[in-house]
Amino acid sequence: MELDQYDNPSIIDDCSVPPRVSRKSKPDPAIVDVNGLRFGSEKVVIIAGPCSVENHEQLMETAKAVKSAGGMILRGGAFKPRSSPYNFQGLGEEGLKYLAEARAITGLPVVTEVMDTRLVELVAEYTDILQIGSRNMQNYPLLKEVGRLRKPVLLKRGMMATIEEFLLAAEYILNQGNEQVILCERGIRTFETSTRNTLDLSAVPMLKHLSHLPVIVDPSHGTGHRWMVPAMAKAAVAAGADGLIIEVHYKPEEALCDGHQSLSPDEFTRLMTDLRKIAKAVGRDIY
Amino acid sequence: MELDQYDNPSIIDDCSVPPRVSRKSKPDPAIVDVNGLRFGSEKVVIIAGPCSVENHEQLMETAKAVKSAGGMILRGGAFKPRSSPYNFQGLGEEGLKYLAEARAITGLPVVTEVMDTRLVELVAEYTDILQIGSRNMQNYPLLKEVGRLRKPVLLKRGMMATIEEFLLAAEYILNQGNEQVILCERGIRTFETSTRNTLDLSAVPMLKHLSHLPVIVDPSHGTGHRWMVPAMAKAAVAAGADGLIIEVHYKPEEALCDGHQSLSPDEFTRLMTDLRKIAKAVGRDIY
Amino acid sequence: MELDQYDNPSIIDDCSVPPRVSRKSKPDPAIVDVNGLRFGSEKVVIIAGPCSVENHEQLMETAKAVKSAGGMILRGGAFKPRSSPYNFQGLGEEGLKYLAEARAITGLPVVTEVMDTRLVELVAEYTDILQIGSRNMQNYPLLKEVGRLRKPVLLKRGMMATIEEFLLAAEYILNQGNEQVILCERGIRTFETSTRNTLDLSAVPMLKHLSHLPVIVDPSHGTGHRWMVPAMAKAAVAAGADGLIIEVHYKPEEALCDGHQSLSPDEFTRLMTDLRKIAKAVGRDIY
Amino acid sequence: MELDQYDNPSIIDDCSVPPRVSRKSKPDPAIVDVNGLRFGSEKVVIIAGPCSVENHEQLMETAKAVKSAGGMILRGGAFKPRSSPYNFQGLGEEGLKYLAEARAITGLPVVTEVMDTRLVELVAEYTDILQIGSRNMQNYPLLKEVGRLRKPVLLKRGMMATIEEFLLAAEYILNQGNEQVILCERGIRTFETSTRNTLDLSAVPMLKHLSHLPVIVDPSHGTGHRWMVPAMAKAAVAAGADGLIIEVHYKPEEALCDGHQSLSPDEFTRLMTDLRKIAKAVGRDIY
Repeated sequence: MELDQYDNPSIIDDCSVPPRVSRKSKPDPAIVDVNGLRFGSEKVVIIAGPCSVENHEQLMETAKAVKSAGGMILRGGAFKPRSSPYNFQGLGEEGLKYLAEARAITGLPVVTEVMDTRLVELVAEYTDILQIGSRNMQNYPLLKEVGRLRKPVLLKRGMMATIEEFLLAAEYILNQGNEQVILCERGIRTFETSTRNTLDLSAVPMLKHLSHLPVIVDPSHGTGHRWMVPAMAKAAVAAGADGLIIEVHYKPEEALCDGHQSLSPDEFTRLMTDLRKIAKAVGRDIY
Repeated sequence: MELDQYDNPSIIDDCSVPPRVSRKSKPDPAIVDVNGLRFGSEKVVIIAGPCSVENHEQLMETAKAVKSAGGMILRGGAFKPRSSPYNFQGLGEEGLKYLAEARAITGLPVVTEVMDTRLVELVAEYTDILQIGSRNMQNYPLLKEVGRLRKPVLLKRGMMATIEEFLLAAEYILNQGNEQVILCERGIRTFETSTRNTLDLSAVPMLKHLSHLPVIVDPSHGTGHRWMVPAMAKAAVAAGADGLIIEVHYKPEEALCDGHQSLSPDEFTRLMTDLRKIAKAVGRDIY
Repeated sequence: MELDQYDNPSIIDDCSVPPRVSRKSKPDPAIVDVNGLRFGSEKVVIIAGPCSVENHEQLMETAKAVKSAGGMILRGGAFKPRSSPYNFQGLGEEGLKYLAEARAITGLPVVTEVMDTRLVELVAEYTDILQIGSRNMQNYPLLKEVGRLRKPVLLKRGMMATIEEFLLAAEYILNQGNEQVILCERGIRTFETSTRNTLDLSAVPMLKHLSHLPVIVDPSHGTGHRWMVPAMAKAAVAAGADGLIIEVHYKPEEALCDGHQSLSPDEFTRLMTDLRKIAKAVGRDIY
Repeated sequence: MELDQYDNPSIIDDCSVPPRVSRKSKPDPAIVDVNGLRFGSEKVVIIAGPCSVENHEQLMETAKAVKSAGGMILRGGAFKPRSSPYNFQGLGEEGLKYLAEARAITGLPVVTEVMDTRLVELVAEYTDILQIGSRNMQNYPLLKEVGRLRKPVLLKRGMMATIEEFLLAAEYILNQGNEQVILCERGIRTFETSTRNTLDLSAVPMLKHLSHLPVIVDPSHGTGHRWMVPAMAKAAVAAGADGLIIEVHYKPEEALCDGHQSLSPDEFTRLMTDLRKIAKAVGRDIY
């Protein structure tokens, strides 16, 4: 009996990292290139936008505000996974069209979530990055389907997924031939209830240690509180994140979802200034 | 039925914060002064040292290394809470004497843990800050006992404690008249096993929002991996921490406990340089 | 400030239960009838069979053993959600055909998992109950799709799902018009690692209190240890479960998955005897 | 890389069980005898009584009700660990005296909690079993102190303690020479909030598998809801528990703490009848 180990942590074995995502198989960081924005490079990429596409004005105004503040990619949900069937489920294809229009107007690439294997092709037509949401991290048919694309995939960590399971989910995508995967820590579920989730920033150095894939952080879902987003966004960059995905709404108080965790354009503009300082302090820069 | 709330986070009610620790009762941050080092001020305070006091040489050599790298306070355990009765339990009073000697040699104030109500007076004679460890966060007789002192107390968050329970534990100390309490986030227990604990950095802005007490972070216990400590130490300062407590050992590979999560003097020296940059980036400084 | 509430538990509000699954909307328990086996009645229903359909012999031999021991419904996976893409993914449609053959031979209705919206129709042709697995509990397009069927659905609780989220997932199915939903507690993810999951038997009385839907328990996934299955199966019936779903394999030591948590036919036969005694002790019976 | 293990549970290694509590060191179950009531025998022992001793009438009336319903041991807290310093902290030594009087009147042995090393001797004078509460499971000085006694100790599992840590805490007591330890599962902390804790009944067969010590269950703290206590009490006995500890109050609606989870004398009387049936169904009996 090795009694000395009682107070020691359990250590993830490098050997349990699946081969295609493992840093062992590819010691240099993978770069996922989205219209010249290089996730995994020395530049930090900031994605911002509303939780969901609500209507034409909301998306266009928010997109312009994101662009003007220095955001690089626009987020916005057209198909929304909501806990209740009675909540707003998203605009569907109409939302995708608004996203395409916002891209045309602002020049920002867009990222949006896909939830259904039957809609992967449709969503891929409209978007620059396909997002797999937290609830679908282990939706294997969906992972295989986006693995058959040759487009970047933003894979969010399941709220109850271990680091090992997260990497195995990414492996499903790479195993189909699509190597353009961006990992996203967005908070895990714990006993703590003062925050919406517990943002596990340790996942950033851990994932970058075990895998060559780029890693970004979602401080909006990770905390659930607008006023906490700046602190945790800065902490994420200090911890080594390759990017952030932040909820911004031109009128947070009127948002159909996640208004309480969305920044206003002014708040986002101020945050961008602060983030540049942090990026510099860790020897990086922001696009 | 308020269906809209299904996807909303649970929000801690300011009203559930107990009165003496609440920021409402004292809008300005409390300053806990330890020999002129002011926790809660614009200066960030770095505590460093070994997990446990092992012998004379180990402590003196480590203390000098901490001092030389710019550490401000020396940590070291004389009474150790170990999961197994067969693990090293600490040197007891002999350890306290070594700490006093290290303080005399280096000029560094010292912090050490007290676990037993019967030993509070003894430990208080030797140390500048008394630490209440994670396992004793809800040891109410002990909280009351250190509450009767007029010495700073470093209260570590229980690995299973909510933010609300953490503040209630601090309230036990303040309620006895001792207002010199420093809160310490040191990682919570979750389902994730790749790290020793899940360092909940969101606790930093949350605690500072709800309470006027200073908040520090322990990235060593929070991660359990030496190589992750720098990333998480930087993230903690970026998130707004008023200080850090870091395990440093002059020969980590020979440590009786926590060697795998202890920095060498060289690693600690490099980290101090990096931390100054982060502190500057958030408008603060390090002593 | 209501200080008295500090030590009180948080209480789920009856009002937060969605309307169609709520017991308030339908005070009598719903009966889900599968070929005359009535889930939710005074009779306890036992489902048993292998984790996955591996080959013809394995399924037929196991099905006969289940039948002979008194099992009432046959389980077996044709499409398997596996954490790693390199694990056995199931036989697919070939597996469905074997299930149909096993039903023809033994007369046992069958239940199998569906993971992909595109396969719902196909799976529904072959099976008596469609299972939505733990990882897909919040796969809303899939929930809607099975909601359009008029066939029983066995909905497993997500390993990270609260009781409230579980009921909301069921509501998605009922909201499409399919009221034949059987809820299944199968263990949640916690910090404890000695068992595969933590079987939350409190969910049985809680779900039956809040909803009119029948509730069954999966002690095989809930524990991950063959030797613990009998104790927890008995506990589940004592707690008021309307049924059990148990992994049985004719040669557990040769199983392609979950062998360590599968009962042999002899073990299952003995368990059936013990379960009848427990069912009697709580005023119920087993078919 | 052993990919097959990805879907397998982590298994507690028998070798990680400390020697004195291990079943390997003592294959037969240990019997802890309290005035002839033998924990760990074929007889199930029922402990009941109020959360805390509130006043003379409350304790005497409740004690008589417990006795009359067939309860065998009286519980009642004199020193109460409360999350808030402003909650009722217990009557202290006065409470111990009332417990002694209740024992004299009813003949029931008593169990009460001790929280402070300085009070172990005092509490031991008045009580038949000393309880170590959940929050003190890793209070090592306290464990050592009760380990020096030669009286039964009821050790409650920490709300965030693994099975391994629980057994190591018991080992601290046995290692001091006191082998009369009764383990108590009382619910662990998880993400689920509809119950006060998540009662981990799997701990019963697991602990009995790994250790020779008797195991009891606390369904009152485990659920936090009076109406759930009977279901979970029955489930605990079905799972193999050697006893139960149940909160009973002669007027639950007036209780100073835990009234919402306390049974009335009538409810407790009915439960005793039901428990006898379950005990019989698993080949045991109730005293």
